[in-house]
Amino acid sequence: MNLTKILVVSPMYKDLQIVIEKEVTDKTFRFIPENEFSQSDLSWADALVSFNLKADYDYSHLKWVHSLGAGVDRFLYKKDWNEAVLLTRTICSFGQRIAEYCLSYILKDLQLHDVFQNQQQLKSWKQHTPKLVGDQKVLVYGTGEIGQMIAKVFSGLGVDVFGVSLSGQEKANFKEVMKLDFHTSRLSEMNYIINTLPLTEKTEKIFNDIIFCQLKSAGFINVGRGASVDEGALLKALSGNHISYAVLDVFSQEPLLENNPLWRHPRVFITPHISAVTTPNEGAACFINTLKNIEANKPLKNKVDTKRGY
Amino acid sequence: MNLTKILVVSPMYKDLQIVIEKEVTDKTFRFIPENEFSQSDLSWADALVSFNLKADYDYSHLKWVHSLGAGVDRFLYKKDWNEAVLLTRTICSFGQRIAEYCLSYILKDLQLHDVFQNQQQLKSWKQHTPKLVGDQKVLVYGTGEIGQMIAKVFSGLGVDVFGVSLSGQEKANFKEVMKLDFHTSRLSEMNYIINTLPLTEKTEKIFNDIIFCQLKSAGFINVGRGASVDEGALLKALSGNHISYAVLDVFSQEPLLENNPLWRHPRVFITPHISAVTTPNEGAACFINTLKNIEANKPLKNKVDTKRGY
Repeated sequence: MNLTKILVVSPMYKDLQIVIEKEVTDKTFRFIPENEFSQSDLSWADALVSFNLKADYDYSHLKWVHSLGAGVDRFLYKKDWNEAVLLTRTICSFGQRIAEYCLSYILKDLQLHDVFQNQQQLKSWKQHTPKLVGDQKVLVYGTGEIGQMIAKVFSGLGVDVFGVSLSGQEKANFKEVMKLDFHTSRLSEMNYIINTLPLTEKTEKIFNDIIFCQLKSAGFINVGRGASVDEGALLKALSGNHISYAVLDVFSQEPLLENNPLWRHPRVFITPHISAVTTPNEGAACFINTLKNIEANKPLKNKVDTKRGY
Repeated sequence: MNLTKILVVSPMYKDLQIVIEKEVTDKTFRFIPENEFSQSDLSWADALVSFNLKADYDYSHLKWVHSLGAGVDRFLYKKDWNEAVLLTRTICSFGQRIAEYCLSYILKDLQLHDVFQNQQQLKSWKQHTPKLVGDQKVLVYGTGEIGQMIAKVFSGLGVDVFGVSLSGQEKANFKEVMKLDFHTSRLSEMNYIINTLPLTEKTEKIFNDIIFCQLKSAGFINVGRGASVDEGALLKALSGNHISYAVLDVFSQEPLLENNPLWRHPRVFITPHISAVTTPNEGAACFINTLKNIEANKPLKNKVDTKRGY
């Protein structure tokens, strides 16, 4: 693939420029913020590096698009993709970051942080016994890079980690991987549910009444995509205590709208899509590495199957 | 050792009775709560199982005292111990419990729980990047059972764990163990300090201005003993930002007195001595196991060196 002109569109374009221009000297780059992204820049380029597309622009002449995020639903979901265009995505410390995010909120629950914080306000000295993480069962939807790293971190702490995937294929560090089509009967034993699934037509609103009503006071953590959750069903499941508490990092519309009732729910914890941040250094390193592999005709671990959607 | 009459004094005496009387049928037991503990019960017994002593009682006739807690300062610290009396202590899941307690509060800090919770109150969507635990340096005072388990859990997550002990002897899972007498020059590199030291005359107020003033905005977690900390120096170190935040599970006086300024400090998190709870099942199991080992003349892993104090 002959690449000469590369357009980098990102809120962190300045930081990316510093790292990339030091390493890659045989290409011409344009580094711009998202609000300056124009069709003329795009028409100039052979390749695009970005978190996003713009709906009405024409991308079909590009040779390569590299997603600065791990998720590529912004490129593929409910869009037509020109299969002649190579699509790659960023793989870096996302799995470790997301695993630590999930672990922090599960330990917050098991260690009763909120109970003790409330007691401190009242200067109340009353003992309650935290629970051990190793006594918990954690179910992870998605057994890809991120799901596997969650399984690795949690199983290292003695947790029984179960997985759900389309194929049900066994993966390292999972005690058991279940097929999506046949897993709901097992939901009632789970203490925590973690969603890492990519957004595709198959995973849209996959977390609905059917799944939630099987849960027995489980914690629900969404680090996948917001549109995989039926929000009405989630609120109902919180009321009915099928879900004891929810930790949400992703939403069908981001930023989360001001009038969304999730903001004020006492058992919902909201974070602004930060569980797997692409840092400038890691984003640049993954891009540079992918570029080198393309030019050396090496296999690309981070190539997206655009039909499958991830 | 010929043991026939065993006195068990504990707030959880009823739960202990159920488990112990099922397993041990060749002894006579008395199970009583702490407020009913009398000299006549004590005089009756060959052996005592308890969290505590009563200051004015005579224990010198006992053959064996078993501490229901891991710490034995309530038995030895500033007290004369009759060396003819065997002293053992409870060893069970304390290390794992304390490690998870510490991990939960370090992840709470790294994952910016309070920042996002405050933002949620304001319905504010503003991204901040959590830090990875593997980028942190953690220093653990005490490299015994509990310190070693902390080192195991944290090093499993990629953390560089350093230790401080009297001897400076290397231990598994510690990157380096430093001698107490020669470690202060290294304090400025540490992100988190965890105290697990037993209370002895050598560790009383060991955390004083000399140690705190070397720290550069470190998190301080005390799961050892409250009397090891000079509270005035701690408050000064918080003001001077040598300590960014403190998580305190133990205090020189428990329950913590109502007028203690720690209750209201915005960067102090207080828990009521729950990081290593002895559950009735685990407490009973360790007692029964120790009893069997004593009667079989087997070596006792949990025998206390009463001169050393732990």
